[in-house]
Amino acid sequence: SGLVLVKNPHLDLMEEDVLYHLDLGTKTHNLPAMFGDIKFVCVGGSPNRMRAFAQFMQRELGLAGAGEDVADICAGSDRYAMYRAGPVLSISHGMGIPSISIMLHELIKLLHHAKCRDVTIIRIGTSGGLGIEAGSVVITDTAVDSSFQPRFEQVVLDDVVVRSTELDKDLAEELLACSRDIPDFPTLIGHTMCTYDFYEGQGRLDGALCSFSNEKKLEYLRRAYEAGVRNIEMESTAFAALCRLCGLKGESCCFHLL
Amino acid sequence: SGLVLVKNPHLDLMEEDVLYHLDLGTKTHNLPAMFGDIKFVCVGGSPNRMRAFAQFMQRELGLAGAGEDVADICAGSDRYAMYRAGPVLSISHGMGIPSISIMLHELIKLLHHAKCRDVTIIRIGTSGGLGIEAGSVVITDTAVDSSFQPRFEQVVLDDVVVRSTELDKDLAEELLACSRDIPDFPTLIGHTMCTYDFYEGQGRLDGALCSFSNEKKLEYLRRAYEAGVRNIEMESTAFAALCRLCGLKGESCCFHLL
Repeated sequence: SGLVLVKNPHLDLMEEDVLYHLDLGTKTHNLPAMFGDIKFVCVGGSPNRMRAFAQFMQRELGLAGAGEDVADICAGSDRYAMYRAGPVLSISHGMGIPSISIMLHELIKLLHHAKCRDVTIIRIGTSGGLGIEAGSVVITDTAVDSSFQPRFEQVVLDDVVVRSTELDKDLAEELLACSRDIPDFPTLIGHTMCTYDFYEGQGRLDGALCSFSNEKKLEYLRRAYEAGVRNIEMESTAFAALCRLCGLKGESCCFHLL
Repeated sequence: SGLVLVKNPHLDLMEEDVLYHLDLGTKTHNLPAMFGDIKFVCVGGSPNRMRAFAQFMQRELGLAGAGEDVADICAGSDRYAMYRAGPVLSISHGMGIPSISIMLHELIKLLHHAKCRDVTIIRIGTSGGLGIEAGSVVITDTAVDSSFQPRFEQVVLDDVVVRSTELDKDLAEELLACSRDIPDFPTLIGHTMCTYDFYEGQGRLDGALCSFSNEKKLEYLRRAYEAGVRNIEMESTAFAALCRLCGLKGESCCFHLL
Protein backbone atom coordinates (compact mmCIF):
# COMPACT_ATOMS: atom_id res chain seq x y z
CA SER A 1 0.00 0.00 0.00
CA GLY A 2 3.04 2.29 0.28
CA LEU A 3 1.91 3.38 3.74
CA VAL A 4 4.42 3.88 6.52
CA LEU A 5 4.21 1.03 9.03
CA VAL A 6 4.29 1.30 12.76
CA LYS A 7 5.00 -1.95 14.56
CA ASN A 8 3.46 -1.27 17.91
CA PRO A 9 0.11 -2.83 18.90
CA HIS A 10 -0.25 -0.35 21.80
CA LEU A 11 -0.37 2.71 19.55
CA ASP A 12 -3.92 2.14 18.26
CA LEU A 13 -5.20 1.92 21.82
CA MET A 14 -3.93 5.37 22.74
CA GLU A 15 -6.39 8.23 22.78
CA GLU A 16 -3.72 10.73 21.84
CA ASP A 17 -0.23 10.35 20.45
CA VAL A 18 2.07 13.16 21.53
CA LEU A 19 5.27 13.48 19.50
CA TYR A 20 7.05 15.11 22.42
CA HIS A 21 10.34 16.07 20.83
CA LEU A 22 8.70 17.48 17.69
CA ASP A 23 6.08 19.46 19.63
CA LEU A 24 3.30 17.89 17.53
CA GLY A 25 0.43 15.54 18.38
CA THR A 26 -2.67 13.83 17.05
CA LYS A 27 -5.05 15.94 19.13
CA THR A 28 -3.31 19.29 18.81
CA HIS A 29 -2.52 19.12 15.09
CA ASN A 30 -4.29 17.92 11.94
CA LEU A 31 -1.39 15.76 10.81
CA PRO A 32 -3.00 14.47 7.55
CA ALA A 33 -3.71 18.05 6.46
CA MET A 34 -0.25 19.27 7.46
CA PHE A 35 1.82 16.37 6.11
CA GLY A 36 -0.36 14.02 4.00
CA ASP A 37 1.30 15.07 0.70
CA ILE A 38 4.92 14.61 1.87
CA LYS A 39 6.88 12.36 -0.51
CA PHE A 40 10.49 13.02 0.51
CA VAL A 41 12.10 13.45 3.90
CA CYS A 42 15.69 14.66 4.15
CA VAL A 43 17.44 14.45 7.51
CA GLY A 44 20.79 15.74 8.74
CA GLY A 45 22.48 16.59 12.03
CA SER A 46 22.54 20.38 12.03
CA PRO A 47 19.36 22.51 12.30
CA ASN A 48 20.91 25.41 10.37
CA ARG A 49 21.92 23.14 7.53
CA MET A 50 18.44 21.61 7.32
CA ARG A 51 16.90 25.11 7.14
CA ALA A 52 19.33 26.03 4.36
CA PHE A 53 18.42 22.79 2.58
CA ALA A 54 14.67 23.59 2.75
CA GLN A 55 15.38 27.05 1.31
CA PHE A 56 17.48 25.46 -1.45
CA MET A 57 14.64 23.04 -2.28
CA GLN A 58 12.15 25.91 -2.34
CA ARG A 59 14.26 27.65 -4.99
CA GLU A 60 14.94 24.44 -6.95
CA LEU A 61 11.24 23.57 -7.06
CA GLY A 62 10.27 27.16 -7.97
CA LEU A 63 7.87 27.35 -5.03
CA ALA A 64 6.10 30.48 -3.82
CA GLY A 65 8.08 32.20 -1.08
CA ALA A 66 11.43 31.08 -2.49
CA GLY A 67 14.21 33.28 -1.14
CA GLU A 68 12.22 34.10 2.00
CA ASP A 69 12.74 32.58 5.41
CA VAL A 70 11.14 29.23 6.17
CA ALA A 71 9.23 28.54 9.39
CA ASP A 72 10.39 25.90 11.87
CA ILE A 73 7.41 23.53 12.24
CA CYS A 74 8.87 22.32 15.57
CA ALA A 75 9.54 25.85 16.88
CA GLY A 76 7.92 24.92 20.22
CA SER A 77 10.72 22.39 20.86
CA ASP A 78 14.45 23.04 20.69
CA ARG A 79 15.29 19.34 20.29
CA TYR A 80 14.90 19.24 16.51
CA ALA A 81 14.09 21.69 13.70
CA MET A 82 11.69 20.85 10.85
CA TYR A 83 11.00 22.73 7.63
CA ARG A 84 9.03 21.93 4.52
CA ALA A 85 9.38 22.88 0.87
CA GLY A 86 6.47 21.48 -1.18
CA PRO A 87 6.55 17.68 -0.89
CA VAL A 88 9.94 17.73 0.85
CA LEU A 89 10.34 17.69 4.62
CA SER A 90 13.75 18.70 6.01
CA ILE A 91 14.49 17.71 9.63
CA SER A 92 17.54 17.88 11.90
CA HIS A 93 18.43 14.90 14.07
CA GLY A 94 21.33 16.03 16.27
CA MET A 95 24.38 13.84 16.72
CA GLY A 96 24.54 10.11 17.39
CA ILE A 97 22.26 7.07 17.34
CA PRO A 98 20.17 7.90 20.43
CA SER A 99 19.37 11.37 19.07
CA ILE A 100 18.44 10.26 15.53
CA SER A 101 16.43 7.33 16.96
CA ILE A 102 14.14 9.58 18.99
CA MET A 103 13.52 11.76 15.93
CA LEU A 104 12.89 8.75 13.65
CA HIS A 105 10.40 7.11 16.03
CA GLU A 106 8.39 10.33 16.11
CA LEU A 107 8.81 11.03 12.37
CA ILE A 108 7.63 7.51 11.46
CA LYS A 109 4.57 7.93 13.68
CA LEU A 110 3.98 11.37 12.12
CA LEU A 111 4.04 9.94 8.57
CA HIS A 112 1.79 7.08 9.73
CA HIS A 113 -0.78 9.37 11.35
CA ALA A 114 -0.66 11.67 8.31
CA LYS A 115 -1.36 8.64 6.03
CA CYS A 116 1.61 9.48 3.80
CA ARG A 117 2.32 7.05 0.94
CA ASP A 118 5.50 6.05 -0.90
CA VAL A 119 7.81 8.20 1.16
CA THR A 120 11.54 8.24 0.40
CA ILE A 121 13.87 9.28 3.21
CA ILE A 122 17.45 10.38 2.63
CA ARG A 123 20.04 11.24 5.25
CA ILE A 124 22.23 14.07 3.94
CA GLY A 125 24.99 14.33 6.50
CA THR A 126 28.67 14.92 6.92
CA SER A 127 31.20 12.20 7.62
CA GLY A 128 34.89 11.45 7.70
CA GLY A 129 36.15 9.76 4.52
CA LEU A 130 38.40 6.72 4.41
CA GLY A 131 40.88 6.61 1.54
CA ILE A 132 38.76 8.89 -0.63
CA GLU A 133 39.16 12.38 -2.02
CA ALA A 134 38.11 15.20 0.36
CA GLY A 135 34.84 16.70 -0.79
CA SER A 136 33.56 13.36 -2.12
CA VAL A 137 30.02 12.18 -1.48
CA VAL A 138 29.60 8.59 -0.29
CA ILE A 139 26.26 6.93 -1.04
CA THR A 140 25.85 4.11 1.47
CA ASP A 141 25.00 0.64 0.19
CA THR A 142 25.21 -0.91 3.66
CA ALA A 143 25.72 0.65 7.06
CA VAL A 144 28.12 -1.37 9.22
CA ASP A 145 29.03 -1.25 12.91
CA SER A 146 32.51 -0.83 14.42
CA SER A 147 33.21 -4.53 13.71
CA PHE A 148 32.34 -3.89 10.04
CA GLN A 149 29.17 -6.01 10.32
CA PRO A 150 25.89 -5.00 8.61
CA ARG A 151 23.90 -4.93 11.81
CA PHE A 152 22.43 -2.62 14.42
CA GLU A 153 22.61 -4.16 17.87
CA GLN A 154 20.08 -2.47 20.07
CA VAL A 155 19.46 -2.96 23.75
CA VAL A 156 15.70 -3.35 24.32
CA LEU A 157 15.11 -3.54 28.07
CA ASP A 158 17.90 -5.99 28.91
CA ASP A 159 17.86 -7.98 25.66
CA VAL A 160 20.09 -7.28 22.69
CA VAL A 161 18.09 -7.21 19.46
CA VAL A 162 20.02 -7.43 16.17
CA ARG A 163 18.58 -5.61 13.17
CA SER A 164 19.61 -5.50 9.51
CA THR A 165 21.12 -2.29 8.14
CA GLU A 166 20.80 -2.75 4.39
CA LEU A 167 19.64 0.28 2.48
CA ASP A 168 17.74 0.56 -0.81
CA LYS A 169 20.17 -0.51 -3.57
CA ASP A 170 18.02 0.87 -6.45
CA LEU A 171 17.80 4.25 -4.75
CA ALA A 172 21.58 4.24 -4.24
CA GLU A 173 22.10 3.61 -7.99
CA GLU A 174 19.55 6.31 -8.85
CA LEU A 175 21.36 8.85 -6.67
CA LEU A 176 24.71 7.85 -8.20
CA ALA A 177 23.25 8.39 -11.69
CA CYS A 178 22.03 11.88 -10.62
CA SER A 179 25.51 12.76 -9.36
CA ARG A 180 26.95 12.03 -12.82
CA ASP A 181 24.90 14.85 -14.32
CA ILE A 182 26.81 17.34 -12.17
CA PRO A 183 30.36 18.24 -13.24
CA ASP A 184 33.20 17.85 -10.69
CA PHE A 185 31.02 16.07 -8.15
CA PRO A 186 33.06 13.07 -6.96
CA THR A 187 30.57 10.46 -5.77
CA LEU A 188 30.90 6.79 -4.97
CA ILE A 189 28.93 3.93 -3.45
CA GLY A 190 30.45 2.19 -0.43
CA HIS A 191 29.91 0.93 3.09
CA THR A 192 29.46 3.49 5.85
CA MET A 193 30.72 2.70 9.33
CA CYS A 194 28.66 4.02 12.23
CA THR A 195 30.25 4.55 15.65
CA TYR A 196 28.90 5.52 19.06
CA ASP A 197 31.78 7.82 19.81
CA PHE A 198 33.41 10.56 17.75
CA TYR A 199 36.83 10.89 19.39
CA GLU A 200 37.98 7.50 20.65
CA GLY A 201 35.42 5.47 18.66
CA GLN A 202 36.64 6.86 15.33
CA GLY A 203 40.35 6.60 16.18
CA ARG A 204 40.86 10.34 16.46
CA LEU A 205 44.05 11.49 18.18
CA ASP A 206 42.64 14.85 19.32
CA GLY A 207 40.13 14.00 22.05
CA ALA A 208 40.45 14.62 25.80
CA LEU A 209 41.23 10.90 26.11
CA CYS A 210 43.13 8.73 23.69
CA SER A 211 43.78 5.18 24.87
CA PHE A 212 45.39 3.75 21.71
CA SER A 213 48.53 4.29 19.65
CA ASN A 214 48.66 5.79 16.18
CA GLU A 215 49.80 2.37 14.86
CA LYS A 216 46.74 0.63 16.33
CA LYS A 217 44.49 3.30 14.80
CA LEU A 218 46.07 2.95 11.33
CA GLU A 219 45.83 -0.83 11.46
CA TYR A 220 42.12 -0.58 12.40
CA LEU A 221 41.32 1.90 9.66
CA ARG A 222 43.20 -0.25 7.12
CA ARG A 223 41.01 -3.22 8.08
CA ALA A 224 37.91 -1.03 7.80
CA TYR A 225 38.93 0.05 4.28
CA GLU A 226 39.54 -3.59 3.27
CA ALA A 227 36.05 -4.45 4.56
CA GLY A 228 34.64 -1.87 2.11
CA VAL A 229 34.18 1.08 4.49
CA ARG A 230 34.56 4.43 2.71
CA ASN A 231 33.29 6.81 5.36
CA ILE A 232 32.57 7.02 9.10
CA GLU A 233 29.70 8.76 10.85
CA MET A 234 27.41 8.29 13.84
CA GLU A 235 23.82 7.60 12.74
CA SER A 236 23.63 5.29 9.71
CA THR A 237 23.03 1.88 11.33
CA ALA A 238 20.05 3.11 13.39
CA PHE A 239 18.74 5.05 10.38
CA ALA A 240 18.97 2.01 8.08
CA ALA A 241 17.45 -0.38 10.63
CA LEU A 242 14.47 1.81 11.56
CA CYS A 243 13.63 2.82 7.97
CA ARG A 244 13.76 -0.81 6.83
CA LEU A 245 11.53 -2.05 9.64
CA CYS A 246 8.91 0.64 9.03
CA GLY A 247 8.71 0.35 5.24
CA LEU A 248 10.47 3.61 4.41
CA LYS A 249 12.64 3.57 1.29
CA GLY A 250 15.84 4.95 2.75
CA GLU A 251 19.27 6.08 1.63
CA SER A 252 22.17 7.82 3.27
CA CYS A 253 24.66 9.96 1.42
CA CYS A 254 27.32 11.85 3.25
CA PHE A 255 29.67 14.61 2.27
CA HIS A 256 33.26 13.88 3.27
CA LEU A 257 34.42 16.92 5.22
CA LEU A 258 38.00 18.15 4.76
CA SER B 1 46.77 20.60 41.66
CA GLY B 2 43.05 20.82 40.92
CA LEU B 3 43.76 21.17 37.20
CA VAL B 4 41.61 19.39 34.64
CA LEU B 5 43.46 16.40 33.17
CA VAL B 6 43.58 15.38 29.56
CA LYS B 7 44.80 11.84 28.98
CA ASN B 8 46.08 12.10 25.47
CA PRO B 9 49.84 12.24 24.73
CA HIS B 10 49.15 13.46 21.18
CA LEU B 11 47.51 16.68 22.29
CA ASP B 12 50.70 18.44 23.37
CA LEU B 13 52.25 17.78 19.95
CA MET B 14 49.48 19.60 18.10
CA GLU B 15 50.16 23.12 16.91
CA GLU B 16 46.50 24.06 17.25
CA ASP B 17 43.56 22.44 19.00
CA VAL B 18 40.27 23.16 17.29
CA LEU B 19 37.19 22.46 19.40
CA TYR B 20 35.09 21.91 16.27
CA HIS B 21 31.63 21.52 17.76
CA LEU B 22 32.04 24.48 20.13
CA ASP B 23 33.47 26.77 17.43
CA LEU B 24 36.46 27.60 19.66
CA GLY B 25 40.18 26.91 19.32
CA THR B 26 43.58 27.54 20.87
CA LYS B 27 44.75 29.79 18.00
CA THR B 28 41.52 31.67 17.38
CA HIS B 29 40.61 32.33 21.02
CA ASN B 30 42.44 33.27 24.21
CA LEU B 31 40.96 30.45 26.25
CA PRO B 32 42.68 31.27 29.61
CA ALA B 33 41.38 34.86 29.40
CA MET B 34 37.89 33.74 28.37
CA PHE B 35 37.46 30.82 30.77
CA GLY B 36 40.33 30.71 33.32
CA ASP B 37 38.09 31.78 36.23
CA ILE B 38 35.32 29.21 35.62
CA LYS B 39 34.56 27.16 38.77
CA PHE B 40 31.22 25.53 37.93
CA VAL B 41 29.92 23.97 34.74
CA CYS B 42 26.26 23.04 34.44
CA VAL B 43 25.17 20.92 31.49
CA GLY B 44 21.75 19.84 30.22
CA GLY B 45 20.18 18.62 27.00
CA SER B 46 18.18 21.61 25.78
CA PRO B 47 19.86 24.83 24.57
CA ASN B 48 16.89 27.00 25.59
CA ARG B 49 16.93 25.58 29.09
CA MET B 50 20.65 26.18 29.46
CA ARG B 51 20.19 29.81 28.36
CA ALA B 52 17.38 30.21 30.91
CA PHE B 53 19.64 28.67 33.55
CA ALA B 54 22.46 31.14 32.79
CA GLN B 55 19.97 34.01 33.10
CA PHE B 56 18.75 32.58 36.39
CA MET B 57 22.33 32.34 37.70
CA GLN B 58 23.00 35.91 36.60
CA ARG B 59 20.07 37.10 38.74
CA GLU B 60 20.93 34.80 41.67
CA LEU B 61 24.54 36.03 41.72
CA GLY B 62 23.47 39.67 41.35
CA LEU B 63 25.70 40.12 38.30
CA ALA B 64 25.73 43.11 35.99
CA GLY B 65 23.42 42.61 33.03
CA ALA B 66 20.99 40.48 35.02
CA GLY B 67 17.62 40.36 33.28
CA GLU B 68 19.17 41.03 29.90
CA ASP B 69 19.80 38.47 27.19
CA VAL B 70 22.95 36.35 27.43
CA ALA B 71 25.23 35.74 24.44
CA ASP B 72 25.80 32.24 23.07
CA ILE B 73 29.59 31.75 23.19
CA CYS B 74 29.26 28.96 20.59
CA ALA B 75 27.01 31.01 18.28
CA GLY B 76 29.16 30.01 15.27
CA SER B 77 28.12 26.37 15.76
CA ASP B 78 24.58 25.05 16.02
CA ARG B 79 25.69 21.79 17.67
CA TYR B 80 25.74 23.14 21.24
CA ALA B 81 24.93 26.40 23.02
CA MET B 82 27.17 27.87 25.77
CA TYR B 83 26.49 30.76 28.15
CA ARG B 84 28.31 32.12 31.15
CA ALA B 85 27.21 33.89 34.32
CA GLY B 86 30.22 34.87 36.42
CA PRO B 87 32.11 31.71 37.40
CA VAL B 88 29.34 29.47 36.04
CA LEU B 89 29.36 28.03 32.53
CA SER B 90 26.05 26.66 31.21
CA ILE B 91 26.24 24.33 28.18
CA SER B 92 23.75 22.19 26.26
CA HIS B 93 24.70 18.66 25.24
CA GLY B 94 21.85 17.39 23.07
CA MET B 95 20.38 13.94 23.63
CA GLY B 96 22.18 10.67 24.19
CA ILE B 97 25.66 9.40 25.03
CA PRO B 98 27.33 10.13 21.67
CA SER B 99 26.12 13.74 21.76
CA ILE B 100 27.16 14.47 25.37
CA SER B 101 30.50 12.69 24.78
CA ILE B 102 31.51 15.00 21.92
CA MET B 103 30.68 18.03 24.06
CA LEU B 104 32.51 16.68 27.13
CA HIS B 105 35.70 15.87 25.18
CA GLU B 106 35.79 19.44 23.90
CA LEU B 107 34.75 20.99 27.22
CA ILE B 108 37.45 19.07 29.10
CA LYS B 109 40.07 20.24 26.59
CA LEU B 110 38.70 23.79 26.92
CA LEU B 111 39.04 23.74 30.73
CA HIS B 112 42.53 22.23 30.35
CA HIS B 113 43.71 24.86 27.85
CA ALA B 114 42.16 27.61 30.01
CA LYS B 115 44.10 26.27 33.04
CA CYS B 116 40.94 26.16 35.16
CA ARG B 117 41.30 24.79 38.70
CA ASP B 118 38.91 22.96 41.04
CA VAL B 119 36.02 22.83 38.63
CA THR B 120 32.74 21.21 39.66
CA ILE B 121 30.47 19.96 36.89
CA ILE B 122 26.79 19.21 37.41
CA ARG B 123 24.36 17.74 34.90
CA ILE B 124 20.94 19.32 35.42
CA GLY B 125 18.68 17.31 33.16
CA THR B 126 15.25 15.77 32.91
CA SER B 127 14.54 12.09 33.36
CA GLY B 128 11.76 9.60 33.86
CA GLY B 129 11.25 8.63 37.49
CA LEU B 130 10.85 5.09 38.77
CA GLY B 131 8.52 4.65 41.75
CA ILE B 132 8.98 8.26 42.87
CA GLU B 133 6.75 11.30 43.09
CA ALA B 134 6.44 13.31 39.85
CA GLY B 135 8.39 16.54 40.17
CA SER B 136 11.05 14.95 42.39
CA VAL B 137 14.72 15.60 41.84
CA VAL B 138 17.01 12.56 41.83
CA ILE B 139 20.64 13.17 42.76
CA THR B 140 22.66 10.32 41.27
CA ASP B 141 25.03 8.38 43.51
CA THR B 142 25.96 5.92 40.76
CA ALA B 143 25.03 5.81 37.10
CA VAL B 144 24.20 2.29 35.92
CA ASP B 145 23.69 0.74 32.49
CA SER B 146 20.64 -1.17 31.24
CA SER B 147 21.85 -4.26 33.16
CA PHE B 148 21.94 -2.13 36.36
CA GLN B 149 25.75 -2.31 36.46
CA PRO B 150 27.89 0.72 37.47
CA ARG B 151 29.88 0.77 34.24
CA PHE B 152 30.17 2.50 30.91
CA GLU B 153 31.12 0.08 28.16
CA GLN B 154 32.62 2.01 25.33
CA VAL B 155 33.75 0.73 21.94
CA VAL B 156 37.22 2.17 21.21
CA LEU B 157 38.18 1.10 17.68
CA ASP B 158 37.09 -2.55 17.93
CA ASP B 159 37.84 -3.06 21.61
CA VAL B 160 35.30 -2.70 24.40
CA VAL B 161 36.68 -0.58 27.23
CA VAL B 162 34.85 -0.68 30.58
CA ARG B 163 34.88 2.47 32.70
CA SER B 164 33.63 3.20 36.20
CA THR B 165 30.56 5.45 36.61
CA GLU B 166 30.75 6.45 40.26
CA LEU B 167 30.02 10.07 40.99
CA ASP B 168 31.20 12.33 43.81
CA LYS B 169 29.42 11.13 46.98
CA ASP B 170 30.28 14.24 49.04
CA LEU B 171 28.92 16.51 46.34
CA ALA B 172 25.74 14.42 46.22
CA GLU B 173 25.27 14.86 50.00
CA GLU B 174 26.01 18.58 49.72
CA LEU B 175 23.37 18.99 47.00
CA LEU B 176 20.86 17.00 49.08
CA ALA B 177 21.53 19.30 52.05
CA CYS B 178 20.89 22.35 49.82
CA SER B 179 17.57 20.88 48.67
CA ARG B 180 16.41 20.67 52.30
CA ASP B 181 16.59 24.45 52.58
CA ILE B 182 13.88 24.79 49.93
CA PRO B 183 10.29 24.06 50.98
CA ASP B 184 8.30 21.49 48.95
CA PHE B 185 11.27 20.36 46.94
CA PRO B 186 11.18 16.54 46.99
CA THR B 187 14.75 15.34 46.49
CA LEU B 188 16.40 11.96 46.93
CA ILE B 189 19.68 10.19 46.24
CA GLY B 190 19.53 7.05 44.09
CA HIS B 191 20.94 5.18 41.12
CA THR B 192 20.28 6.58 37.68
CA MET B 193 19.91 4.19 34.75
CA CYS B 194 21.27 5.36 31.42
CA THR B 195 19.94 3.88 28.16
CA TYR B 196 20.94 4.24 24.51
CA ASP B 197 17.35 4.38 23.33
CA PHE B 198 14.39 6.42 24.53
CA TYR B 199 11.44 4.41 23.19
CA GLU B 200 12.29 0.71 23.20
CA GLY B 201 15.32 1.03 25.49
CA GLN B 202 13.27 2.58 28.30
CA GLY B 203 10.31 0.24 27.92
CA ARG B 204 8.01 2.87 26.48
CA LEU B 205 4.85 1.62 24.79
CA ASP B 206 4.45 4.65 22.51
CA GLY B 207 7.28 4.35 19.97
CA ALA B 208 7.03 3.50 16.28
CA LEU B 209 8.27 0.03 17.25
CA CYS B 210 7.53 -1.92 20.40
CA SER B 211 8.88 -5.43 20.49
CA PHE B 212 7.94 -6.37 24.06
CA SER B 213 4.80 -6.90 26.12
CA ASN B 214 3.60 -4.65 28.92
CA GLU B 215 4.25 -7.54 31.36
CA LYS B 216 7.88 -7.85 30.26
CA LYS B 217 8.31 -4.09 30.65
CA LEU B 218 6.82 -4.05 34.16
CA GLU B 219 8.96 -7.00 35.23
CA TYR B 220 12.09 -5.21 33.94
CA LEU B 221 11.27 -1.94 35.67
CA ARG B 222 10.52 -3.80 38.89
CA ARG B 223 13.99 -5.38 38.76
CA ALA B 224 15.50 -1.94 38.05
CA TYR B 225 13.76 -0.49 41.10
CA GLU B 226 14.99 -3.38 43.27
CA ALA B 227 18.53 -2.70 42.03
CA GLY B 228 18.21 0.86 43.37
CA VAL B 229 17.33 2.69 40.15
CA ARG B 230 15.16 5.75 40.79
CA ASN B 231 15.27 7.45 37.39
CA ILE B 232 16.12 6.77 33.75
CA GLU B 233 17.85 9.06 31.28
CA MET B 234 20.33 8.89 28.41
CA GLU B 235 23.65 10.51 29.35
CA SER B 236 24.71 9.74 32.93
CA THR B 237 27.10 6.78 32.43
CA ALA B 238 29.21 8.62 29.83
CA PHE B 239 29.09 11.82 31.93
CA ALA B 240 30.23 9.99 35.09
CA ALA B 241 32.98 8.04 33.31
CA LEU B 242 34.49 11.00 31.47
CA CYS B 243 34.38 13.38 34.46
CA ARG B 244 36.01 10.78 36.69
CA LEU B 245 38.80 10.02 34.23
CA CYS B 246 39.62 13.70 33.73
CA GLY B 247 39.61 14.79 37.36
CA LEU B 248 36.37 16.77 37.26
CA LYS B 249 34.25 16.64 40.41
CA GLY B 250 30.94 15.65 38.87
CA GLU B 251 27.32 15.17 39.87
CA SER B 252 24.09 14.56 38.04
CA CYS B 253 20.71 15.63 39.32
CA CYS B 254 17.63 15.18 37.21
CA PHE B 255 14.14 16.53 37.48
CA HIS B 256 11.51 13.80 37.08
CA LEU B 257 9.16 15.02 34.38
CA LEU B 258 5.45 14.32 34.75
